[in-house]
Amino acid sequence: MDINERIRELGLTLPEPAPVGGVYTPVRQSGRQLYVSGQGPTVAGRPAFTGKVGGELTLEQGQEAARLCALNLLAAVKKHTGDLNRVEGVVKVLALVASAPGFGSQPAVINAASQLLVDVFGEKGWHARSAMGTNELPGNIPVEIEAIFELCDE
Amino acid sequence: MDINERIRELGLTLPEPAPVGGVYTPVRQSGRQLYVSGQGPTVAGRPAFTGKVGGELTLEQGQEAARLCALNLLAAVKKHTGDLNRVEGVVKVLALVASAPGFGSQPAVINAASQLLVDVFGEKGWHARSAMGTNELPGNIPVEIEAIFELCDE
Amino acid sequence: MDINERIRELGLTLPEPAPVGGVYTPVRQSGRQLYVSGQGPTVAGRPAFTGKVGGELTLEQGQEAARLCALNLLAAVKKHTGDLNRVEGVVKVLALVASAPGFGSQPAVINAASQLLVDVFGEKGWHARSAMGTNELPGNIPVEIEAIFELCDE
Repeated sequence: MDINERIRELGLTLPEPAPVGGVYTPVRQSGRQLYVSGQGPTVAGRPAFTGKVGGELTLEQGQEAARLCALNLLAAVKKHTGDLNRVEGVVKVLALVASAPGFGSQPAVINAASQLLVDVFGEKGWHARSAMGTNELPGNIPVEIEAIFELCDE
Repeated sequence: MDINERIRELGLTLPEPAPVGGVYTPVRQSGRQLYVSGQGPTVAGRPAFTGKVGGELTLEQGQEAARLCALNLLAAVKKHTGDLNRVEGVVKVLALVASAPGFGSQPAVINAASQLLVDVFGEKGWHARSAMGTNELPGNIPVEIEAIFELCDE
Repeated sequence: MDINERIRELGLTLPEPAPVGGVYTPVRQSGRQLYVSGQGPTVAGRPAFTGKVGGELTLEQGQEAARLCALNLLAAVKKHTGDLNRVEGVVKVLALVASAPGFGSQPAVINAASQLLVDVFGEKGWHARSAMGTNELPGNIPVEIEAIFELCDE
């Protein structure tokens, strides 16, 4: 199935790629792998959420932030490839959740991002993953997610 | 040497693979690389340790937790490959240690995991590694370790 | 252009590779990729900076620490390859900044390392990146950076 059609069916709209926040590139290809830089929960270049999950933010807000990170991953990959149908699948996700003391549900937060990737890519969206906590993320965002995608054979 | 024999000689028993704690797959192959999802110090699906190293837990307890993470990595790879002899070696380990304030011996904690991998795979078990701290990990586990393994040529 | 000449032009001197602080190898090759273990801001094997950025250390000191990490990455790759001209480019950087509560300028800290890599390798030095915070790093260093480099075709 066409990925763009699938994205429409899911009611998703890919944002403009997030502006690059430093001396790096959003996507770097190595062989058939695409390394995508850490994405935050930005909308139109501004964080839609700030604060620590389990503190100022609820689990549900953390999940919504994680979903925005996943949309930004897809937007970056779409811009790099020109067409998401060139993506064979999702290889790996590393996610850090800015966590208030005692918060330990990082996997539940990141499931919202992983589910979106699986919804979009189906079977090929299943990925290896680590979801961990941290005390501070850039600009006080609650979630940052990086990923490795894989391209189809040419 | 046969890896399964080596594991027996070392007196190790691989556990059942840890249950997957979210929307991801324990192992994802990309080319000849196997990306293994972050593993915690679980035994039979439950954390054998919780708490922060340098706080509720001693360095030695952190090391025992790291060893359990390494066994879970091996269990995941064994289930995926069917046979650990298909593994060419260990490429990369990323380990986060939930650290009490002022605790800075993350490498000593993770050495227990790295040593196990080197004991099992010999020369080919030597890997690149980062060992870092964090304030919180899922379910208050003290250590989480992800890794990249490499398969032999077919 | 010859990379060693470029390094001289930039007024940089590569240090001796940092001593390995545990059971791992500084660089592990997998296919054409070089995985480089997490490097700290060490000079002659000792941390040039300790403390948290935004706490005991200023942003500028964090940047100087990040630059030292990048030099140590290059030193490790030079030792492994014998010649930095064998490097095709920089694929990926993962950087953790030990952050005082409320510090959120991790990307500005890590820009100092990324800029050095871009200065040295030019166009091919542009990399995907994640810059995140943490509460504690080994030996109380303020920055730890790991990277993936790519080798030229033989």
